[in-house]
Amino acid sequence: MTSFSNNRVCKLLNIQFPIIQAGMIWASGWKLASAVSNAGALGVIGAGSMYPENLDHHIKSCKEATNKPFGVNLPLLYKDIEKHIDIILKNGVKIVITSAGNPATFTHILKNEGITVIHVVSSSKFAQKAELCGCDAVIAEGFEAGGHNGREETTSFILTPIVSEAVAIPVIAAGGIATGRQMLAAMVLGAEGVQVGSRFVASDEASSHINFKNAILKSAEGDTILSLKELTPVRLLKNQFYEKIKELYHQHASTEQLRTLLGNGRAKKGMFEGDLENGELEIGQVSALIHHIQPASYIVTEIVRQFEEALQNPLK
Amino acid sequence: MTSFSNNRVCKLLNIQFPIIQAGMIWASGWKLASAVSNAGALGVIGAGSMYPENLDHHIKSCKEATNKPFGVNLPLLYKDIEKHIDIILKNGVKIVITSAGNPATFTHILKNEGITVIHVVSSSKFAQKAELCGCDAVIAEGFEAGGHNGREETTSFILTPIVSEAVAIPVIAAGGIATGRQMLAAMVLGAEGVQVGSRFVASDEASSHINFKNAILKSAEGDTILSLKELTPVRLLKNQFYEKIKELYHQHASTEQLRTLLGNGRAKKGMFEGDLENGELEIGQVSALIHHIQPASYIVTEIVRQFEEALQNPLK
Repeated sequence: MTSFSNNRVCKLLNIQFPIIQAGMIWASGWKLASAVSNAGALGVIGAGSMYPENLDHHIKSCKEATNKPFGVNLPLLYKDIEKHIDIILKNGVKIVITSAGNPATFTHILKNEGITVIHVVSSSKFAQKAELCGCDAVIAEGFEAGGHNGREETTSFILTPIVSEAVAIPVIAAGGIATGRQMLAAMVLGAEGVQVGSRFVASDEASSHINFKNAILKSAEGDTILSLKELTPVRLLKNQFYEKIKELYHQHASTEQLRTLLGNGRAKKGMFEGDLENGELEIGQVSALIHHIQPASYIVTEIVRQFEEALQNPLK
Repeated sequence: MTSFSNNRVCKLLNIQFPIIQAGMIWASGWKLASAVSNAGALGVIGAGSMYPENLDHHIKSCKEATNKPFGVNLPLLYKDIEKHIDIILKNGVKIVITSAGNPATFTHILKNEGITVIHVVSSSKFAQKAELCGCDAVIAEGFEAGGHNGREETTSFILTPIVSEAVAIPVIAAGGIATGRQMLAAMVLGAEGVQVGSRFVASDEASSHINFKNAILKSAEGDTILSLKELTPVRLLKNQFYEKIKELYHQHASTEQLRTLLGNGRAKKGMFEGDLENGELEIGQVSALIHHIQPASYIVTEIVRQFEEALQNPLK
């Protein structure tokens, strides 16, 4: 794989392919993370849906299941953030991906312990801030990405080159990437690696409910939408829960009413428990291009193979 | 330029480079179209902002200014559509790009006259319909594009590959393309050509007002937004007019109130007369990457040069 022999993301993370599995809530436990890492990419445990003791269990299990590098995704606004950091440090985690919050608060604590820190951003301004805070790389996440998302709605076609121009640290593109051609396109735009989310939700090892995985396979263009912008913008699959959000919008509901509808546990109900009507189903636009549930190792291998083919024959 | 020797868009349109200048209202008269065509790409006259007699004048002037192929962009919902078609036929225009409407109505009339017809679409379903109607190619326009836009909000990263898989006719990517690297990325994703809009608005030859051109140079990430979704979704530069739209939204205004605010002549006021506060300024997200007003021929040459460099060295 000579294509990646000088790749800075591979060097930084000590991985074979510059592909990071997104640390998606309710999908990314030790099984998925270790399978991705064993396949030569970076597996990531999603701490956002875990109590501290769960996170501890998943990190320990991941270390047993792989000798390769893996990471933990840590939403900085999480209420148990300090307990999570404590567990990350105690378990000797080497790579942390921070998101949804200010990198100034925790980056130096992690860096002081020798941890590689990558921050998720949705603009070049945030990317420059992350670089100033000492982050080793940034993940630039476009409007098309699933889950929580930036307010400026900048898509990967614009975000990738503009962030790549704005910082000297490596840029990893996220949002809209499920195939090797999409990976190459992102790298042509200036990224040195990619983060893949939705495709790994539809993997055998993801802890997402099978109903949710099947819903991803069935989804088509226009089936996702960036919604709840008054709270935190989130891209989700349209379902009955989304119809209720729409109803509230038609009634000119207050932010408080939206928050009440969202309630607690919506995401778990949808993505983990498989309630496709009442649950929140976070997924990217690229779900329209996902047609199979496959082992994570197959997904990594296929993306790399498609990437290499595309690199040999970029214009088809 | 061996890269394009087998390119189907070049063959179809008899042009040197598979770059189409978008037929943007208030920007794309004969000066811009002929300059782009003379540079080896496809110049396009934007009929959407022209009375029939204006269109007649611009087509005649364009034929005097270039011997190369050029096209006319024709929004199918335009009230004078039949007069426009009449003028197109009388003047022997060879290439028509249709948008904003049903390709079933007029494609066969144009095709019967030997005209090459390309239709602008925002989904693979519309692309398949255009193909069935006999269109020779489609332009797949992503969410990031300026001006009127699809309701499904699919971005170029997803739209380009999904439309390319859905039809056998050539796909031209639009939305988010102002540089040669963006052009290559679109072609890696399956496009056989690109349509470039915003970058040509900021050209010497565009009839856009200089105030608007300067506003494009100043614009940054997050400065455009897809708005007025209750009428026809349109991506515009945020200004005082947009603040008034926002105010109406906060007051839960009706569609009728929004239509009244929009009124008539907003687009002309902004883009042609240069009223940056009260006018409507249609532009794409990629305006954040546009830093200079340049001659159209320079823009074509630079995009092609960057494309060739990127093709030689796709991973930088």
